[in-house]
Amino acid sequence: MARLAANSYGKSEVRLTKVVRNPDRHDLIEYSVNIQLRGEFAASYLTGDNTSVLPTDTMKNTVYGLAAQNEFDSPEAFAMILAEHFMSRNPQVSEAEIRIAQTRWNRIKVAGKRHPHAFVDCGPEKRTCAVRKTRSSLSVGSGIDNLIVLKTTDSAFKGFPRDPFTTLVETDDRIFATSVQANWEYGDTSGDWNQRHDEVRTAIVETFATHMSLAVQQTLYAMGEAALAACKSVRQISFRLPNQHRIPFNLEPLGLKNTNSIFVTTSEPYGDISGTVVRD
Amino acid sequence: MARLAANSYGKSEVRLTKVVRNPDRHDLIEYSVNIQLRGEFAASYLTGDNTSVLPTDTMKNTVYGLAAQNEFDSPEAFAMILAEHFMSRNPQVSEAEIRIAQTRWNRIKVAGKRHPHAFVDCGPEKRTCAVRKTRSSLSVGSGIDNLIVLKTTDSAFKGFPRDPFTTLVETDDRIFATSVQANWEYGDTSGDWNQRHDEVRTAIVETFATHMSLAVQQTLYAMGEAALAACKSVRQISFRLPNQHRIPFNLEPLGLKNTNSIFVTTSEPYGDISGTVVRD
Amino acid sequence: MARLAANSYGKSEVRLTKVVRNPDRHDLIEYSVNIQLRGEFAASYLTGDNTSVLPTDTMKNTVYGLAAQNEFDSPEAFAMILAEHFMSRNPQVSEAEIRIAQTRWNRIKVAGKRHPHAFVDCGPEKRTCAVRKTRSSLSVGSGIDNLIVLKTTDSAFKGFPRDPFTTLVETDDRIFATSVQANWEYGDTSGDWNQRHDEVRTAIVETFATHMSLAVQQTLYAMGEAALAACKSVRQISFRLPNQHRIPFNLEPLGLKNTNSIFVTTSEPYGDISGTVVRD
Amino acid sequence: MARLAANSYGKSEVRLTKVVRNPDRHDLIEYSVNIQLRGEFAASYLTGDNTSVLPTDTMKNTVYGLAAQNEFDSPEAFAMILAEHFMSRNPQVSEAEIRIAQTRWNRIKVAGKRHPHAFVDCGPEKRTCAVRKTRSSLSVGSGIDNLIVLKTTDSAFKGFPRDPFTTLVETDDRIFATSVQANWEYGDTSGDWNQRHDEVRTAIVETFATHMSLAVQQTLYAMGEAALAACKSVRQISFRLPNQHRIPFNLEPLGLKNTNSIFVTTSEPYGDISGTVVRD
Repeated sequence: MARLAANSYGKSEVRLTKVVRNPDRHDLIEYSVNIQLRGEFAASYLTGDNTSVLPTDTMKNTVYGLAAQNEFDSPEAFAMILAEHFMSRNPQVSEAEIRIAQTRWNRIKVAGKRHPHAFVDCGPEKRTCAVRKTRSSLSVGSGIDNLIVLKTTDSAFKGFPRDPFTTLVETDDRIFATSVQANWEYGDTSGDWNQRHDEVRTAIVETFATHMSLAVQQTLYAMGEAALAACKSVRQISFRLPNQHRIPFNLEPLGLKNTNSIFVTTSEPYGDISGTVVRD
Repeated sequence: MARLAANSYGKSEVRLTKVVRNPDRHDLIEYSVNIQLRGEFAASYLTGDNTSVLPTDTMKNTVYGLAAQNEFDSPEAFAMILAEHFMSRNPQVSEAEIRIAQTRWNRIKVAGKRHPHAFVDCGPEKRTCAVRKTRSSLSVGSGIDNLIVLKTTDSAFKGFPRDPFTTLVETDDRIFATSVQANWEYGDTSGDWNQRHDEVRTAIVETFATHMSLAVQQTLYAMGEAALAACKSVRQISFRLPNQHRIPFNLEPLGLKNTNSIFVTTSEPYGDISGTVVRD
Repeated sequence: MARLAANSYGKSEVRLTKVVRNPDRHDLIEYSVNIQLRGEFAASYLTGDNTSVLPTDTMKNTVYGLAAQNEFDSPEAFAMILAEHFMSRNPQVSEAEIRIAQTRWNRIKVAGKRHPHAFVDCGPEKRTCAVRKTRSSLSVGSGIDNLIVLKTTDSAFKGFPRDPFTTLVETDDRIFATSVQANWEYGDTSGDWNQRHDEVRTAIVETFATHMSLAVQQTLYAMGEAALAACKSVRQISFRLPNQHRIPFNLEPLGLKNTNSIFVTTSEPYGDISGTVVRD
Repeated sequence: MARLAANSYGKSEVRLTKVVRNPDRHDLIEYSVNIQLRGEFAASYLTGDNTSVLPTDTMKNTVYGLAAQNEFDSPEAFAMILAEHFMSRNPQVSEAEIRIAQTRWNRIKVAGKRHPHAFVDCGPEKRTCAVRKTRSSLSVGSGIDNLIVLKTTDSAFKGFPRDPFTTLVETDDRIFATSVQANWEYGDTSGDWNQRHDEVRTAIVETFATHMSLAVQQTLYAMGEAALAACKSVRQISFRLPNQHRIPFNLEPLGLKNTNSIFVTTSEPYGDISGTVVRD
């Protein structure tokens, strides 16, 4: 009567800190690694036969073991090492998916100079990547999570349809704030992942700042176009742009006037805009 | 050079409280509503033309307006009302997706009697639903989020493969704790949604308690089988079962023995097991 | 020029799971333990001399070691064991403060019967305690964190002063929801901690349900009075009652009427009411 | 039998965004404001008489109203405006306490130039202040919350006492990471609050980076000394330094050696060190 359809398992949030002790400075690598394997695991689901089930505890150990055995300078490179490891040693696995989120650190400045081994957390933004390897394919994607940006002008929203439940007033000049989530796919599987990430991130951030926005949707598309123009290796990019609304506070009942300067910062509800821009 | 592929937009986390004031008791409804529309919205992305973009603020108002105008006794019923509303009034929309998470409340007991209008929050668990309506189809699904369960025995994990990075010891008797996320699809679009949800939830919880578990995967499948058996209207059910590990504390360096009674509670990393069981 | 005033150190969020395997049923104990020591630790601050600094890692081990060596049936009892341990073995310590938060679990019901070893998380509410031991004193307190309650009527707020910034309308009938934080002190250091906690919690919850509330402040005081009446060992009780507002949604612009039934659920800002009730 | 001891009430997490539109650039102010009043409020607790209870909703309006009516360039200045307002208009209030947490934003750089009206969130760190005004006194304090810093070397912990539960190994070279919470009191009530905050923050961060740490305690004291030296107006400073542990991963069971480079990042449990340094 019942049948197992999709299945997948792995270890999530394996948190790795690696210190590379160069003569002149230390490099700090902080990743949260997620591993998911798919393949011939039905016996475990159906009868509890774990003969083919590589323990998730072993996956965790593997993250630390391979981090010790290998040099790498990007999450994409490390994700490929992990994917290759699991695929080459586990014939029962048909697909390995490795996702990594990197915590960003800035060097502390002491008397204006970047310190060789002291760091300060630079925000909620994460650099992410996703590597998927099957018996016949390899795909590499990168991304950004929780890049919070805000502009105080050059954003409008008008010309929208009205129905009996519409109360929103049209505006030529509103605050536009969002937490950018972007994920892009590369058309190849090798390259300078750090330079590529920089190119895409810069395109996104600079477009956000300079775009004359008639809608969040339009800015999303403009950021996608800019990312594709900035990094030729990207073949498509998807965005989710949840609004972080700043709502003009109604000062009239207080006998005051709001000259587009006083806003209530809210967490929910929020507009939630998504879209994918592909190279044509 | 660039082209808009998928797009979607809407309002998330619209938090609704509705009180139904019956003569003998008040009913408390608390939903967090998420709305996503798909359709002919390219003009907004490409040129900032918002002629067809129903504001997300209007969507929010619609939640409160339709909650006032309609009686409903389940999130599924309210989600269908919302989906029908957006589809019937917006020809530019090709698909409306409504997801609702319901906060669960118990009535406070006073001197052993359930109080008519006072409630206590009964946990992190949410009842969820997802309704998707297109020009030619309607699908209804329900779910559970964050149902945290734990059993102190009747769980083993052994017979797994070992590689050079494997350190896990086999065990006949471990703690099994997880935060159940379950989502199921119904084969029809009408019925007693509350009874169905109860049937599936009871099947999941009772199976968790009584199953002799040889693997999380096996318990997942058993819960899926039980859910399909308990509610004939369910055509498939998917689970995600992230482990909430309790790791035996090594008391030996302290000169003590751990008789399978003292554990460290950890949040990460965690095993993360998924699977879908379909009616055959 | 500088001088060390207050100092304190310890280990926080030591998460312990203990399973007591009785013949007929298992008991599940889940505590998060916080330890802070005060005393002669100035040398560590001033010169990095750690001769008297019991490592916080040792404190963590001590939680697991003493949990294995001792039987206890309440967080208060375990906190006293820990406080006694640190004070008796560390003459440099002048005060040990142990705070414990207990996760609450209900037994899963299978076919109406409480299961002997399977449990379900019953909410965000925590049972807490605080034990402070010095060379000459011992104090025991207990508490509740995050007990979320809501009543749909029997709550008013009117007769308040108005100034030019006041826009709130008086109301005879509003929703009253809060997340109760209560902390009370006992007048003695032994007793049935579980029964006492039950007495106080029941007094709080039943008073919340049945009190005709003219202000959150008034309900706070009534709950305090009821707690003092219910448990003679309590000498004072403090509450913090942050509002969880439900704000009537203005349906008029939508051409509808709100019959005190449709509300927006908000997280912030929130009213935040505190008070202490002492036995006279 | 019962008596009201301490009482306090107010509004928490009033989130304000203010945009100052200068000709050449916009300034962005984002505060979360907490207000607590103390005074003659017993009637509300005892009988529900709200004659003297300024609604917390009015407090919220006051934040937005005074933000519109006043120019200010620091949270300290705005907190003093709020405190003065509540004290001067409410004779029943004996103390007003205003605490503000400021979100920090950096200007987005476009082609290397700081943008006049686009910003990026620069991290979890908050700038805080606390102003307390009574009928006879005014105190101003400032602080930092959640400043996350990490150094990969120049941190040791050894020479500590060992007991039967001690397993920690002594180390000459460990990672030291913490989330700094600092609160300091000024000896006066006027000055350049921004410059003072910069002076203290720089002293803390540079000391963290350059101090040869024999204990978290010692670094705490050194940071306090540096802060007092950097800003003459500070009369005392308190720190809480919760460890963010990086634990060397034991690679030996994997047949590998850990050359002080591979660490597990953990959230709990954590060492939790506090201390106050006062000007002598």
